[in-house]
Amino acid sequence: MSRVTFDKLCDHARETALLQSVAELLGWDERTKMPPAAGAYRAEQMTYLSSLAHRRQTDPQLGEWLDELVVSDLASDRHSDAGATIRQMRREYDKLTKLPQSLVEELTRASVLGQQAWVEARKNDDFVTFAPILEQIVSLKRQQADAIGYDECPYDALLDDFEPGETTKNVARVLEALRSELVPMVAAIADSSRTPDLDLLKRTYPIDSQETFGKQAATAIGFEFNRGRLDVTHHPFCAGMGPDDCRLTTRYDEHFFPSGFFSILHEAGHGIYDQGLRGDQFGLPPGSYLSLGIHESQSRMWENMVGRSVSFWQHFYPEAQETFREALGNAQLEDFCFAVNDVRPSLIRVEADEATYNLHIIIRFELEQALINDELAIRDLPAAWNQKYRDYLGIEPPSDADGVLQDVHWSAALIGYFPTYALGNLYAAQFYAQAAHDIGPLDEQFERGDFTSLLGWLREKIHYSGQCYTASELVQNVTSKPLSHDALIAYLREKYTHYYGLN
Amino acid sequence: MSRVTFDKLCDHARETALLQSVAELLGWDERTKMPPAAGAYRAEQMTYLSSLAHRRQTDPQLGEWLDELVVSDLASDRHSDAGATIRQMRREYDKLTKLPQSLVEELTRASVLGQQAWVEARKNDDFVTFAPILEQIVSLKRQQADAIGYDECPYDALLDDFEPGETTKNVARVLEALRSELVPMVAAIADSSRTPDLDLLKRTYPIDSQETFGKQAATAIGFEFNRGRLDVTHHPFCAGMGPDDCRLTTRYDEHFFPSGFFSILHEAGHGIYDQGLRGDQFGLPPGSYLSLGIHESQSRMWENMVGRSVSFWQHFYPEAQETFREALGNAQLEDFCFAVNDVRPSLIRVEADEATYNLHIIIRFELEQALINDELAIRDLPAAWNQKYRDYLGIEPPSDADGVLQDVHWSAALIGYFPTYALGNLYAAQFYAQAAHDIGPLDEQFERGDFTSLLGWLREKIHYSGQCYTASELVQNVTSKPLSHDALIAYLREKYTHYYGLN
Repeated sequence: MSRVTFDKLCDHARETALLQSVAELLGWDERTKMPPAAGAYRAEQMTYLSSLAHRRQTDPQLGEWLDELVVSDLASDRHSDAGATIRQMRREYDKLTKLPQSLVEELTRASVLGQQAWVEARKNDDFVTFAPILEQIVSLKRQQADAIGYDECPYDALLDDFEPGETTKNVARVLEALRSELVPMVAAIADSSRTPDLDLLKRTYPIDSQETFGKQAATAIGFEFNRGRLDVTHHPFCAGMGPDDCRLTTRYDEHFFPSGFFSILHEAGHGIYDQGLRGDQFGLPPGSYLSLGIHESQSRMWENMVGRSVSFWQHFYPEAQETFREALGNAQLEDFCFAVNDVRPSLIRVEADEATYNLHIIIRFELEQALINDELAIRDLPAAWNQKYRDYLGIEPPSDADGVLQDVHWSAALIGYFPTYALGNLYAAQFYAQAAHDIGPLDEQFERGDFTSLLGWLREKIHYSGQCYTASELVQNVTSKPLSHDALIAYLREKYTHYYGLN
Repeated sequence: MSRVTFDKLCDHARETALLQSVAELLGWDERTKMPPAAGAYRAEQMTYLSSLAHRRQTDPQLGEWLDELVVSDLASDRHSDAGATIRQMRREYDKLTKLPQSLVEELTRASVLGQQAWVEARKNDDFVTFAPILEQIVSLKRQQADAIGYDECPYDALLDDFEPGETTKNVARVLEALRSELVPMVAAIADSSRTPDLDLLKRTYPIDSQETFGKQAATAIGFEFNRGRLDVTHHPFCAGMGPDDCRLTTRYDEHFFPSGFFSILHEAGHGIYDQGLRGDQFGLPPGSYLSLGIHESQSRMWENMVGRSVSFWQHFYPEAQETFREALGNAQLEDFCFAVNDVRPSLIRVEADEATYNLHIIIRFELEQALINDELAIRDLPAAWNQKYRDYLGIEPPSDADGVLQDVHWSAALIGYFPTYALGNLYAAQFYAQAAHDIGPLDEQFERGDFTSLLGWLREKIHYSGQCYTASELVQNVTSKPLSHDALIAYLREKYTHYYGLN
């Protein structure tokens, strides 16, 4: 009996996924191909599809099926495909039906107005005019947390939207430990007498060649272009719109090589995860990505652990020199590698290097918790922001535009999202260390241009399991340890000891 | 009361249009951008959207609203926005609900199988293996005609899908008259001692430059690129996916200029019509294109009457010579114009010139009527085809692949579609003559690169009226004459008298 109900549940979810995947395509098209004047109608199309999908996701029939299934045998093994499907769909259904329609609408409206206000505020370096809408957003997010419910603190409920099952307490524990190691490490690097020659990255890199070279590298690490494509946007992203349709974007700067190339590797890392999910479970939890943090771990691993390694470039550098003869013909491999691993405290998160990036995130994580917990008034936010930049990075934002106003997230009501970026780096390092332990020295393989062992390991250990485990469970299962800052710190320390002579 | 119902009807139609426009985007994406492996899931997405749209279009609630509205005051002026909306939606609803679901499914299946069989049959020049599925398609189309109903002959019901309100008898009358003039005209041209130098069209035309030049010309005649775009496909097409989103495609041949350029003008003509429809009525009959024939009249007018005219090239030729210096630097304007107006009987419809094209259509129109009326057996179709090519064009298809198997239409269950191509040419000539009469010598304007008078005339007389009149009514209103072959014959006779010295 419950098998029949389960099949109905799955068919229902697959139909919803048809709508959601179409909405993904609309979004991709809007950002890559859509004519400028078509935005208004595109918004209507997307709103309509969202409303159809939302109606399906909150269909009381779904609730009835789930009531029956959660007590059935099928749900008994929570890590089986069926068990995970029932558990995750129950979670999603409960969350969506707990939010009052009025709150959903207010949040949507505040997010649209917030982003408009943010664009202006950032342009005019004017936090004061942005403050009221941010105040309203924070208040609505508190209401959202109350409606959803939480165990320890309201932030738990918000974090759960992006990193399901994770707790504020656990994230805070790991990020505090990370911070206590990173702050002195970054300071030591800033004091180092060694610095890379960044000029060689700023020579002329023709854009056509960047595209060809980037696609070649993305293909080599495992992105399948017969199931995907690469386009250009101002903000790089990766979007999946079907089990065999995953699209990357990047942006090219003819006079700064890393911009285009590492965005391609980063987005290809996301794409490789998408392409590694089980196609037969598309639209169902076992075939869906686990969390934003896990997604980010895949992009950061390929971008940084692999893509900025010496061994990666031992393979690709001759090709790069051939392709960018004018820029790299006379540059040494070691100088190039040092340049792409440059560390320096800077103001802007999205331009930050591997070491300082996490401090940018920790600052935001600490501040948004304080906002939600009513421990920090909106009017005091810019000063608190600047203080943390002084404390953790030793720099002083000269303006709010390049300080507290630099990110879109809060204006878009995305609170609880930021820590997933740091979690991504932490998961990546911990997985990467385990992969090296499980499959032997990766560097030797990379030098030969062979990325298949790592790819296969990720497929088996991470991609194929979809949402059958929580992220915490996955980390524990795969690495036999809970999440910690150790692997990331060890990885960074080794790298920067090499380049900067840390002791 | 009926106003409230009418508003509900319109809202319902606008929501359906949201789904249909999204389906258009999916189709465009499939043909231009989609990764090769994504086809299977794309088919699921499109089938699902079609089923949602079809469910809405046959919603019994719609029938009830329409029952109320057809007898209301709003319907009394059948040419008003409201009157046209009620009349056209009634037509559509009745048609869709008259077809049994089983027949719809059989037609869909036969069309899919038909196209697969056709691809193979054409490749292998093997009509015999294609015959059974074509037999089945013809039989299903007869059933469709019976289900829909007709006044005089089953073909009326099929024609109505593409040229609503038009009758077989009227189309046959005009096309027979056209044929009786065209056959001797084409023969006389074939006998002419004058022939253009086609070699100059086959020189090197760099594809980038073709794109830039083509977009420039499309912009000049009135296609708005802020509301549209241009991409590359094997088969050029135009697709609208919103009131401000109309996308053209073309194909470029570096060594044959007309291929890319005239496809751009042709599709831009379709696009200009789309962009000229009333945006506030998008998804409703007053904001929808009238018929395939009227659509084709707009593409053919800009492609041929405008785009192959001497005056058009008097404006664009210096630019063309500048752009394609190697190919055209030393070529004379008159020689170029003669070359792009070359006439010669040929086997393949899609490569045919302005004069012979209509004979290709007339052959198909006569044959498909004979099939539907059971006056021609499928097995006798290839011989009948070849006989007509001998009779009308004086040539002999050497194979069925380049004969009766050349078009996809019949295999896709599109019977009644072909005559709209010829109707397009007839409407175009009749409209164009009227425009010249109404707004003075067009050639002088074109020489100056000014296409705005013609564009404005088309907007006012044709685009803005959407489906408020039938095509026959529109032709009568705009030109004060019923459709006839006179204008097209006069236009062709004048042109070819000039080039070929017809007497």
